Amino acid sequence: MTTKTADRTRHFKLIIEYDGTDYCGWQRQKTDPSIQATIETAIARMTRTTVTLHGSGRTDAGVHALGQCAHFSCPTRLGSQEVLKGLNSLLPTDIAIQACEEVGPAFHARYDVRHKTYRYRVLNRPVRAAVDRRYAWHIYRPLDLAAMNAAAGHLEGRHDFKAFESTGSPRAHTVRQVLAARWRRTEDHELHFDISADGFLKFMVRNIVGTLVAVGRGKIEPAAVRSILASRDRRRAGATAPPHGLFLVEVVY
Amino acid sequence: MTTKTADRTRHFKLIIEYDGTDYCGWQRQKTDPSIQATIETAIARMTRTTVTLHGSGRTDAGVHALGQCAHFSCPTRLGSQEVLKGLNSLLPTDIAIQACEEVGPAFHARYDVRHKTYRYRVLNRPVRAAVDRRYAWHIYRPLDLAAMNAAAGHLEGRHDFKAFESTGSPRAHTVRQVLAARWRRTEDHELHFDISADGFLKFMVRNIVGTLVAVGRGKIEPAAVRSILASRDRRRAGATAPPHGLFLVEVVY
Repeated sequence: MTTKTADRTRHFKLIIEYDGTDYCGWQRQKTDPSIQATIETAIARMTRTTVTLHGSGRTDAGVHALGQCAHFSCPTRLGSQEVLKGLNSLLPTDIAIQACEEVGPAFHARYDVRHKTYRYRVLNRPVRAAVDRRYAWHIYRPLDLAAMNAAAGHLEGRHDFKAFESTGSPRAHTVRQVLAARWRRTEDHELHFDISADGFLKFMVRNIVGTLVAVGRGKIEPAAVRSILASRDRRRAGATAPPHGLFLVEVVY
Repeated sequence: MTTKTADRTRHFKLIIEYDGTDYCGWQRQKTDPSIQATIETAIARMTRTTVTLHGSGRTDAGVHALGQCAHFSCPTRLGSQEVLKGLNSLLPTDIAIQACEEVGPAFHARYDVRHKTYRYRVLNRPVRAAVDRRYAWHIYRPLDLAAMNAAAGHLEGRHDFKAFESTGSPRAHTVRQVLAARWRRTEDHELHFDISADGFLKFMVRNIVGTLVAVGRGKIEPAAVRSILASRDRRRAGATAPPHGLFLVEVVY
């Protein structure tokens, strides 16, 4: 007589890097390839169990991540390092699990988020890039970094960000706490915008970047960002920056 | 009566960035797409003249460039900035002309090279990358940077590099002057190897990197690089590093 022990249900937290170029975004969709479904498929192949992978939130089509977080639960004998290696061997090359740890059943990748950090990369030089063409928004004319940082300063703190929310996706609560919002110049003619907040509305980072780039071009005064915020009117803010410059860098719990 | 002035023959020097992932290398070939042929086609469309584009040297299949140099001559009324903009509007997104200037007829992109600098990027961390997967060689086990730099020091100066030349492509003269050869650690777990020399043999950088990585793994003693050089025997050196970590950074005239 053999004793068959049922596999214990385990809960795993993943930190995920991905190149979003060829995906319709994080969220599973009926036809187009998504990050979520691609990883769920790899988990199913590895564990022979159908699971739902819960992300910290969606990223849009074409947006990248260095540190997206997600969790899933399934009955398995595999430990966290086996899950890490197993998934990386099954996943396509544009998705890579960076870390995996076992967590308690109470952990939820979306509900437990304390804050997130996004980075937006702008290549600010006369000529376009070949190597980093997928990972930075190319803007030929020189941008005024000091003006962009003066404007960004008005976003820090607790504000109603409705003016920076994509139309057609209203949330009941549009107040968010921005912990930091700062541009810096890097080597190789890039400008990086890092923004941390307790939550983000749909397209919020890309709408903010589009607005701050308009400031950098001299189209909007830095101080006008205050009145744009106060207006709660999407039409007052700038255009939506393209997705390929945006990276979800970190999720803090 | 109209006076028709024949276009003057002009000579242009280009600085070219490219992502070599989808090319068979710099050199024009019968069937596969090459960087050279792609740019020649763009020049032909722009000037309605068939030209030969002379590069500073070949780069292998899959190798990238931030600053490849090349020249061409053709009868045209276009100035250097029109050539720059015209080519960038015609070229695919993985090739971008970074600079264009008119030069005298005596300039030759290959024969006038004084020295070149290559960079090799190694991603040295346990887990593979998703975003930079095309641009760095992933090595999981920690490499000993100090040992690699001790070994690299033996390459600096004037030496016969026959031991680091790809077999099947012999050059009559295999002595080259290496001006600098140095590894440094960057943020994001990368190791960058910069090497400058008055010339490079076929696969020389990749064979050197493969050898220095073997040193970093503890398979070869740093001092053994001296005897490998002295042996002039390719079999004594390490394996050839993969092409996708290699960038031609600069050509100096």
